[in-house]
Amino acid sequence: MTTIAITAGGTSEDIDGVRKITNISTGSLGWNCLEALFEYMQQTNQTDFQVYYIHTTTAIRKVLTPKQQSHVEFIEVSDVESVYNAVNTLTQTKQVDYFIHSMAISDFTYSYSVGITSLAEELFQLMESDNKTSLQEIRDVLTNPKSKLCNDTKISSSEDLLMGLTTTPKVIPLIKGNNPNTFLVGFKLLRAVSSAELIAEAERLAQRNDCDMVFANEASRISENNHTGLLIKNGEIIEKPSGKKEIAKSIIYNMCKGK
Amino acid sequence: MTTIAITAGGTSEDIDGVRKITNISTGSLGWNCLEALFEYMQQTNQTDFQVYYIHTTTAIRKVLTPKQQSHVEFIEVSDVESVYNAVNTLTQTKQVDYFIHSMAISDFTYSYSVGITSLAEELFQLMESDNKTSLQEIRDVLTNPKSKLCNDTKISSSEDLLMGLTTTPKVIPLIKGNNPNTFLVGFKLLRAVSSAELIAEAERLAQRNDCDMVFANEASRISENNHTGLLIKNGEIIEKPSGKKEIAKSIIYNMCKGK
Repeated sequence: MTTIAITAGGTSEDIDGVRKITNISTGSLGWNCLEALFEYMQQTNQTDFQVYYIHTTTAIRKVLTPKQQSHVEFIEVSDVESVYNAVNTLTQTKQVDYFIHSMAISDFTYSYSVGITSLAEELFQLMESDNKTSLQEIRDVLTNPKSKLCNDTKISSSEDLLMGLTTTPKVIPLIKGNNPNTFLVGFKLLRAVSSAELIAEAERLAQRNDCDMVFANEASRISENNHTGLLIKNGEIIEKPSGKKEIAKSIIYNMCKGK
Repeated sequence: MTTIAITAGGTSEDIDGVRKITNISTGSLGWNCLEALFEYMQQTNQTDFQVYYIHTTTAIRKVLTPKQQSHVEFIEVSDVESVYNAVNTLTQTKQVDYFIHSMAISDFTYSYSVGITSLAEELFQLMESDNKTSLQEIRDVLTNPKSKLCNDTKISSSEDLLMGLTTTPKVIPLIKGNNPNTFLVGFKLLRAVSSAELIAEAERLAQRNDCDMVFANEASRISENNHTGLLIKNGEIIEKPSGKKEIAKSIIYNMCKGK
């Protein structure tokens, strides 16, 4: 039995029960990978495989045939914490052969909001009261101001705000950490960078998280029907596919022959 | 000719070309109002009407019959600025009889991001260099720090952040401002408030923006298939509809007989 995991869509971090921080990912590339995988399995006459499709609530999903359906278990997630838990559980309980990690996961989660005037006043009072305010004291206020807005009410719209965001735990290290033999496909999305920088960043991602292959792309070169990028393996560009269907095919083909 | 405008969906404010601030609105209530309007027009044998449907890119849209389609002009928007311009242009160029303003419009737009350590250092240096730092100087740094991250690159994920948000211009005052005779239906969504507070807030919205009717609801009482709220007119609850279909019917019926 071949086991494949795919993550797809963009996570969403709740701010106040109404507002949220999310990203431009639609989950389209992940879904195209699933379709390309079915095509590859059919062409190579493989029927003994199981897909775990971890997707956000808003990620694109299309209709599957009952036969295709029988090969997929859908796992729905929302914020970073839920993705972390889903990936951790899956990779601890299953031997995953291939992991396509296309989900766009927020690097930050919401911590607090504070009115800009209230925060300025809190800092001003700190300086007034102290003989000599330290860098650490200022940092502490910025990390967790006393003047922050109450967490369980919708934020008022009356004045300019500052929003504190804290970094989230990285999901990708879990994959090889729990399953060292998994073939891992990572994704790198950057903005306003040259091809050289994109390749360098993709290589850094591959090194740091032990990715076997990375698909790297630049945000301005993505739209629903037009999407280009670089498929990178061992620091070399092995293909430059264009269009989500071709990108997905290229990923699946190179992944399956790559192990 | 009867002219009806409907706004639907949640706006989306760009952070860095990849990330964005948005909200939980799906545009479902707006779409239900459009469907309820078609039903009402059919029942009352009215064919001389035109709908302007201002919706965000991600707002739910369903299939219309060609006949229904001929009554609607769709206007797509994304962030607050684009909604403001669309509503301003529409209300300046058309005599709108009914305006159902169900869109969830962000109260804030993205201004800047800054690493928490960099901002603490900037404030610390300000205090070191000054004999006596003023409240205004602190406020100026928080409004526009020198240490803020460059606007045209994707934000790095390496340290905790502060994000500056500025208030957006209000769209709703444009409606009656440009078209004093429009029958305006406003919407108020709050979180974790009592019914009394909800009614008081809805009444405040009605007073401030000259709404003829307000539909008020509380976030925890909304889901795709289960949604309740209060329809308020002249400070009185006139109906407590439940379910998006019933809410839409109640809004359309009370609006059309209300003018």
